[in-house]
Amino acid sequence: MMTATHLKERSLLGLKDLSRNEIESILDRAAYWESQSEKVVPMLNSQFVANMFFENSTRTRFSFEMAEKRLGAQVLNFAAAASSVDKGESIYDTVRTLESMGIDAGVIRLKPDGVLQHLAETVNIPLINAGDGNNEHPTQALLDLYTMRKKFGSLKGLKVSIIGDIQHSRVARSDLWALKKFGAEVRFCAPNSMRAPELEQYAPYVSMDEAMEADVVMMLRVQLERHATGILKSAAEYRVQYGLTEARAAKLSKDTIIMHPAPVNRNVEIDDLVVESSQSMIFPQMSNGVPIRMAVIERALKN
Amino acid sequence: MMTATHLKERSLLGLKDLSRNEIESILDRAAYWESQSEKVVPMLNSQFVANMFFENSTRTRFSFEMAEKRLGAQVLNFAAAASSVDKGESIYDTVRTLESMGIDAGVIRLKPDGVLQHLAETVNIPLINAGDGNNEHPTQALLDLYTMRKKFGSLKGLKVSIIGDIQHSRVARSDLWALKKFGAEVRFCAPNSMRAPELEQYAPYVSMDEAMEADVVMMLRVQLERHATGILKSAAEYRVQYGLTEARAAKLSKDTIIMHPAPVNRNVEIDDLVVESSQSMIFPQMSNGVPIRMAVIERALKN
Amino acid sequence: MMTATHLKERSLLGLKDLSRNEIESILDRAAYWESQSEKVVPMLNSQFVANMFFENSTRTRFSFEMAEKRLGAQVLNFAAAASSVDKGESIYDTVRTLESMGIDAGVIRLKPDGVLQHLAETVNIPLINAGDGNNEHPTQALLDLYTMRKKFGSLKGLKVSIIGDIQHSRVARSDLWALKKFGAEVRFCAPNSMRAPELEQYAPYVSMDEAMEADVVMMLRVQLERHATGILKSAAEYRVQYGLTEARAAKLSKDTIIMHPAPVNRNVEIDDLVVESSQSMIFPQMSNGVPIRMAVIERALKN
Repeated sequence: MMTATHLKERSLLGLKDLSRNEIESILDRAAYWESQSEKVVPMLNSQFVANMFFENSTRTRFSFEMAEKRLGAQVLNFAAAASSVDKGESIYDTVRTLESMGIDAGVIRLKPDGVLQHLAETVNIPLINAGDGNNEHPTQALLDLYTMRKKFGSLKGLKVSIIGDIQHSRVARSDLWALKKFGAEVRFCAPNSMRAPELEQYAPYVSMDEAMEADVVMMLRVQLERHATGILKSAAEYRVQYGLTEARAAKLSKDTIIMHPAPVNRNVEIDDLVVESSQSMIFPQMSNGVPIRMAVIERALKN
Repeated sequence: MMTATHLKERSLLGLKDLSRNEIESILDRAAYWESQSEKVVPMLNSQFVANMFFENSTRTRFSFEMAEKRLGAQVLNFAAAASSVDKGESIYDTVRTLESMGIDAGVIRLKPDGVLQHLAETVNIPLINAGDGNNEHPTQALLDLYTMRKKFGSLKGLKVSIIGDIQHSRVARSDLWALKKFGAEVRFCAPNSMRAPELEQYAPYVSMDEAMEADVVMMLRVQLERHATGILKSAAEYRVQYGLTEARAAKLSKDTIIMHPAPVNRNVEIDDLVVESSQSMIFPQMSNGVPIRMAVIERALKN
Repeated sequence: MMTATHLKERSLLGLKDLSRNEIESILDRAAYWESQSEKVVPMLNSQFVANMFFENSTRTRFSFEMAEKRLGAQVLNFAAAASSVDKGESIYDTVRTLESMGIDAGVIRLKPDGVLQHLAETVNIPLINAGDGNNEHPTQALLDLYTMRKKFGSLKGLKVSIIGDIQHSRVARSDLWALKKFGAEVRFCAPNSMRAPELEQYAPYVSMDEAMEADVVMMLRVQLERHATGILKSAAEYRVQYGLTEARAAKLSKDTIIMHPAPVNRNVEIDDLVVESSQSMIFPQMSNGVPIRMAVIERALKN
């Protein structure tokens, strides 16, 4: 049985409360894993990781599963049927069940607010946040930072524009908390209806033209399904006002990189050809996700 | 190709026809597995087990998968989409298909009556019952017996009250058949609409007050989805009449243990705080399920 | 990074463009794998195969998964929720995502026409076709040829009748292309509404009576779900006109074998007892699918 402190050091619930040093050591360890030529290292052969996806995400689950298997871990996958497990109570019971069965760590993605925090205080295994409501998505931000660091060498002073639905974005929040620790300058750009007022003290809202003047232009996914009516008149109109169109991309500095947490709504927040352009880091971000998650899983489970 | 006798000795279809000696040797082997410090023992590395869940159950599937992987087996998972495979014919063809592909054993959970028996007479691989209609759920009862034996040392003379929807409970049946073999005294408690008349010759129905006087109080899950109207006036009323409320739990002898096959409808058949109380064995039952299933899988596949 | 030629030699998109020699070497390698007593050979321990089933098929996925695990590969499974991923764009992004994450080969099953070809020209990993719209299903045809070769020694001059919905059958097409390369004589039998006019130059349409005069009688699955109204008056009528009824089966030569790609609609295209008869190769086909897919996976991944 782990002590509470020990557990807290192994879990990854968010980046807001993680020190710059801890983040840096995860990035460094990811660089180590990326440099390894051996694809599978059987260091976690006798440890079980459960991927508990109460909110579906094929990509994130695959990335974690790949990371876990590259470390030799035993993997159990749970994916909730769409819309079935929204209730904190069921999530709690499922996690407790898996803990009772003897899993060594849990990767968890879920919607309801506050449940992850409650779980982390209750269960006795490390938990890794793979997407927590509108709160944090730390491994996504870690791979974002890793991608920026690879390109620019350092994060200090980097101008990062995050564009889109800030209000509902756990990615924007995790990136914001982490980037600020490294002295990067974060700016948001969003229509009024998608702004998060409580974050304005940390990052100013700028116009789309200003947002384009940056080292990193990070586009967020428009949650078309979330904006039933009113908020978003149409995808086409959103593209004109807040999309990274071919025209806007053509005017970017050649050193600016384009990022997106994926999956992309092509021709809504980013034009098709821009996704595939040489400045786009969207596929490299996915590649970088695996060594990042290897570092995070290893941190959770290594003796 | 196995002989019919050999196959029968390796399959686990139910406890009704299993001898007391056979049950005891499974419990003993589970104790061995529980005592092992190595989590994964690669003894079944070249054998394939298919988990064929024609009726969904995340928990039971996870427990089997964990058991199989702790023995090093190769695991294939099949989960039917809700309500798709209710027909015996499709189940038969799926099992025959997997047998043809070369699996070495099948864990199977299904609803329709009689299909498992028919399969066991037709296919040439050991089958393990992971829930068979209203008939039996032997690994659940084995883990129940294991949990009782750990607490009380012996099952002989133990007073066990099983409370709830006896009529539709394969758990109640498997527990009844097994407990009787060990000289335990089983009593049922259920509203008239949930009684199984054919079982009355084996276990008397008692009042809720009498049921509380026992070494083991085993609450069954109310299948809320099964009792559309009439049978069950309301969950709240059920709780008052047949639920293990905090008030009833407070009056239990301190040596009485509380059990439930899970998942629990919290605050219907058991109050929330009672689930988490020190007399509750609900989470230990889940822990015990893994070594029990290791013993059952090993029995099916070991040379 | 593989060269385009190298990739093309490792992928398996269809049999139409595969040489007779290449097909033969896959069949020979399958025979090797079938003869091995060791079930799991850890030759691909550090390689990742993703099974990407954008169209569901429990059987085909299981067969590939078994083949991959028998070669020791690391396996990732993706199954699209029914009817969710019909769009080429989403398929493209999912495959690119998995490629970015570092998978070494992809097994893919999908509905929309032309997407597989486009993917093969875009991604840099070997792709294996596990069912491509109405186009090809090469591993099914390979296991069919393997089954015929095992029975008859040679494919040259073999009379093969393929009966049923030729128009929508990728199995019929792959079998046709491959059998012609070996000098087999293929004949089709189908109601007018199920004929594929563009194939008539390769195989004549014959009556049901003529079709029964063959070394191989291959029945196709009636896609009951595809023929809403009009095309197919009723399953019962189809059985009378184009089904392999017990009466028709009784008149077959004793050396004729009966084949079907499965799953069977029992008592529609084949009577129940005929499926289980000694001339039926339906379950042996499933057995043969595993070594065939081992040969195909090995070809994709072996150094």
